[in-house]
Amino acid sequence: MCRWIAYSGTPILLSQVLFEPRHSLIDQSLHSRLGVETTNGDGFGVGWYAPDLTTPAVLRDVGPAWNNRNLQEVAHHVRSGLFFAHVRATTGTAVQQTNCHPFRRDRWMWMHNGAIREFHRLRRDLALAVDPALYAEIEGSTDSELMFYLALTFGLTDDPPGAVARMATLVEETGHRHDVEHPLQMTVAVADGRRLWVFRHSSEGASRSLYYSTRVDTLRALHPDAGYLREVSEETRLVVSEPLGDLPGAWNEVPENHYGVVEPGLDELHAFRPVA
Amino acid sequence: MCRWIAYSGTPILLSQVLFEPRHSLIDQSLHSRLGVETTNGDGFGVGWYAPDLTTPAVLRDVGPAWNNRNLQEVAHHVRSGLFFAHVRATTGTAVQQTNCHPFRRDRWMWMHNGAIREFHRLRRDLALAVDPALYAEIEGSTDSELMFYLALTFGLTDDPPGAVARMATLVEETGHRHDVEHPLQMTVAVADGRRLWVFRHSSEGASRSLYYSTRVDTLRALHPDAGYLREVSEETRLVVSEPLGDLPGAWNEVPENHYGVVEPGLDELHAFRPVA
Amino acid sequence: MCRWIAYSGTPILLSQVLFEPRHSLIDQSLHSRLGVETTNGDGFGVGWYAPDLTTPAVLRDVGPAWNNRNLQEVAHHVRSGLFFAHVRATTGTAVQQTNCHPFRRDRWMWMHNGAIREFHRLRRDLALAVDPALYAEIEGSTDSELMFYLALTFGLTDDPPGAVARMATLVEETGHRHDVEHPLQMTVAVADGRRLWVFRHSSEGASRSLYYSTRVDTLRALHPDAGYLREVSEETRLVVSEPLGDLPGAWNEVPENHYGVVEPGLDELHAFRPVA
Amino acid sequence: MCRWIAYSGTPILLSQVLFEPRHSLIDQSLHSRLGVETTNGDGFGVGWYAPDLTTPAVLRDVGPAWNNRNLQEVAHHVRSGLFFAHVRATTGTAVQQTNCHPFRRDRWMWMHNGAIREFHRLRRDLALAVDPALYAEIEGSTDSELMFYLALTFGLTDDPPGAVARMATLVEETGHRHDVEHPLQMTVAVADGRRLWVFRHSSEGASRSLYYSTRVDTLRALHPDAGYLREVSEETRLVVSEPLGDLPGAWNEVPENHYGVVEPGLDELHAFRPVA
Repeated sequence: MCRWIAYSGTPILLSQVLFEPRHSLIDQSLHSRLGVETTNGDGFGVGWYAPDLTTPAVLRDVGPAWNNRNLQEVAHHVRSGLFFAHVRATTGTAVQQTNCHPFRRDRWMWMHNGAIREFHRLRRDLALAVDPALYAEIEGSTDSELMFYLALTFGLTDDPPGAVARMATLVEETGHRHDVEHPLQMTVAVADGRRLWVFRHSSEGASRSLYYSTRVDTLRALHPDAGYLREVSEETRLVVSEPLGDLPGAWNEVPENHYGVVEPGLDELHAFRPVA
Repeated sequence: MCRWIAYSGTPILLSQVLFEPRHSLIDQSLHSRLGVETTNGDGFGVGWYAPDLTTPAVLRDVGPAWNNRNLQEVAHHVRSGLFFAHVRATTGTAVQQTNCHPFRRDRWMWMHNGAIREFHRLRRDLALAVDPALYAEIEGSTDSELMFYLALTFGLTDDPPGAVARMATLVEETGHRHDVEHPLQMTVAVADGRRLWVFRHSSEGASRSLYYSTRVDTLRALHPDAGYLREVSEETRLVVSEPLGDLPGAWNEVPENHYGVVEPGLDELHAFRPVA
Repeated sequence: MCRWIAYSGTPILLSQVLFEPRHSLIDQSLHSRLGVETTNGDGFGVGWYAPDLTTPAVLRDVGPAWNNRNLQEVAHHVRSGLFFAHVRATTGTAVQQTNCHPFRRDRWMWMHNGAIREFHRLRRDLALAVDPALYAEIEGSTDSELMFYLALTFGLTDDPPGAVARMATLVEETGHRHDVEHPLQMTVAVADGRRLWVFRHSSEGASRSLYYSTRVDTLRALHPDAGYLREVSEETRLVVSEPLGDLPGAWNEVPENHYGVVEPGLDELHAFRPVA
Repeated sequence: MCRWIAYSGTPILLSQVLFEPRHSLIDQSLHSRLGVETTNGDGFGVGWYAPDLTTPAVLRDVGPAWNNRNLQEVAHHVRSGLFFAHVRATTGTAVQQTNCHPFRRDRWMWMHNGAIREFHRLRRDLALAVDPALYAEIEGSTDSELMFYLALTFGLTDDPPGAVARMATLVEETGHRHDVEHPLQMTVAVADGRRLWVFRHSSEGASRSLYYSTRVDTLRALHPDAGYLREVSEETRLVVSEPLGDLPGAWNEVPENHYGVVEPGLDELHAFRPVA
């Protein structure tokens, strides 16, 4: 499927997260350990919020991340305190820029790992459920983009956890109506420029891996020698499909069917329950 | 908008039509004379039928045709007796392979120059009219691909002129319902591997230019010195957005709101009337 | 050939120069008025210096600038006080990222409009003149990149005007030895992160167009209503292949066979004389 | 490094070799078993001779072979009796079309798996040894293309084994002069439209894997049920970096430091000895 990473915290060069760690996202694009596919070479994207601008920038391309020079250039020269990155392994849909994550609308970004099962059969019913005022903005052919537009339809900008739950409910109900046993498999990240929400859910209760980084002060106590940890604030948080690097105690699994909120102040972790 | 060419006749190297004429399609990609835009640099495609194979091959890419080496390679090494070529100038939709013409389904190919006006507002209603069994195959975001799927929905494989008329009717009715004065502008080419249909129509009765080549025997009589004309059969026919080359008497305009059929035996030209 | 723009001054969003002016560089990629070709669709590049980093970032791609989304994203989200942008029309060499401008080495950027005439015949002799320690870094096949490496060989990092003059001399002598009447045609921009040098020269004394913007205080006096002018410092300077926008009095031609230096304090304009 | 395949024999659809076998070249682009890297996703190429044309067609692109639609289209619609295919894993040089194999000059094609070690340090000396009349045609930055131009310089079109031996000698002597212990590692395929030469050599006597298919009549005796074998002539031969499929007895290793000639009549296998 795919691998992704979401960063929130002290503004840093994107490359410090994307290229420098030992098992970085770029390395995962070639050698994923926990993914369904070891190679994630069917496109990539990074999205970042810049100071004083409300909409994020999104750089996406159709080749592999591991050999893309523009990604290297941007990552080594742009700083951000809230950014997403995603490497894609297509499950059949076209390899094109509009199928690459993250997706954006106004100040909102969205990325996804997983799949709507038998999407081919469900696609039309799901597309019809998108707000007609939004429908024409759909540019690609992925389940992931459609999930974003469904969440927008269901109130993402007012209540992200509720909207994502309603989206998941619709996907699961639609799937069951078409005799798909486990319609939804997802880890999703959403951001609005200030806060970050991450979701781990699957119809079968066996979701794709998702980890969040341990609190920075705890990590500092565990690893007093890691200079890197002195430079970032206590608020800094990473959420990733697969752990980066090899610092023991650095990563915690997001529990099955849970979601987290990363924001100024204390972060939160809650149960995620699709609802009618 | 775009420029296209359709060839039917004696099998030749694609380059003889695509590159060699003085005002070839490739030249038109840089310097269109009759188009709305002089530059058609937002992707291109060629589709050709090969002997003994029912489905056509389609080569499409997102860069300009004029500098694409793969197009040159294929055009100079592949022969075909029925092929399409198209250079694109986007009217806003993404520059991606799945938005490039020709579109294909089984043994059918489709390409289009023109636009559904205010497509953004009509897109959802038109997509809903596509046969649900076909909907999931839509890969891009163009009006052109959607017109193809509507024509398929309305019986393209059994009755191309009737299906295209029903598609045009639906587009015009849908447009009028949304207060679009002249919803449809189109020159379309369709082929099934044996026959070629070309359509020139617009809601306002002022359609994009479309020309067909004069009968080869007539041309030979006019230009007894043109050696090229001795090599192709009497059946050979070109239909083009803009005349190629500069042979006087070589081109005739497809009349407004008409369609033509190019097939073994006599070709035909008929009035085209969208119907409910 | 090509079109380029170099900006030095108050940090601004790249888009304010690249997209917003009436006859912006992006518009010039489709409709150049003063260039040899009206279309500059064979690749593009932007290079910018970011605060606190010595090397510039370079984003280059092989498609046209006018439809490239990554260029739009970066331009609308990145600020810089010293940046280059270039749109390319190839004179025959391959359309590939390593042939796109600007070229970079360490903290130096280089871009070029023009040509070494009959480069095919001169290429090897010129390549042999490159410092053997630099030769292996040449990645593309353009005359422009080779001119950069020759200038580096001849001391660019210590004395840009002298090194560019020696490069021009070598090209002209090599050309004459091969019976090329007017070997060199160039407008070149070079920067090191702090200063900007621009060169206008041709063997025949009829160089490609090059303009620099009038002093900001003069412009303010001429156009007291132009709010945009209140936001940028007196030091702000643009050098362009073709004037942007339509503010009367805004542009001055760089004289034939001259070079300019844009730096903190007073800018300078000098005669440019290739020397042995 | 890379993986390649060369086919000579009864004209077939390229897809029968490139896509259909169980461990096809396209599968090897994702999951190479015998290569240095498991992923070969940094570009690809196919080159084929068409009937009645002397120069081969070459289709090359910078993305992975496994998701490229144009490759699928061409492979499923073009027949050839002599063709090459190559999937690339860069060892550092740019991912660009001119660095993709096969390379072509007139009717000659060349592809390579391996490397000139410390090419960065040897590149200039090797480039200087290229015939000055050929130098300007070098478009990319790979060791592989330079090896082709050196072989052309040393008489490839008259005596392929001799020219390749002289090229190998030059590379090894140049490497030793620069204190490179084992300068050359190569498996190379060359064709002129009628014959095919394959070379397996390395300075250290431990060359990359290379296999040729067993004689068709022997295979038929071993596998009387394999219908596929009834369709191809006795002359049909495949040479591959890694065996395709899983027919026992189908593949033989090209011996270390040997070359083979595939041509009408009996094929040959000889020792390969670089010479001064």
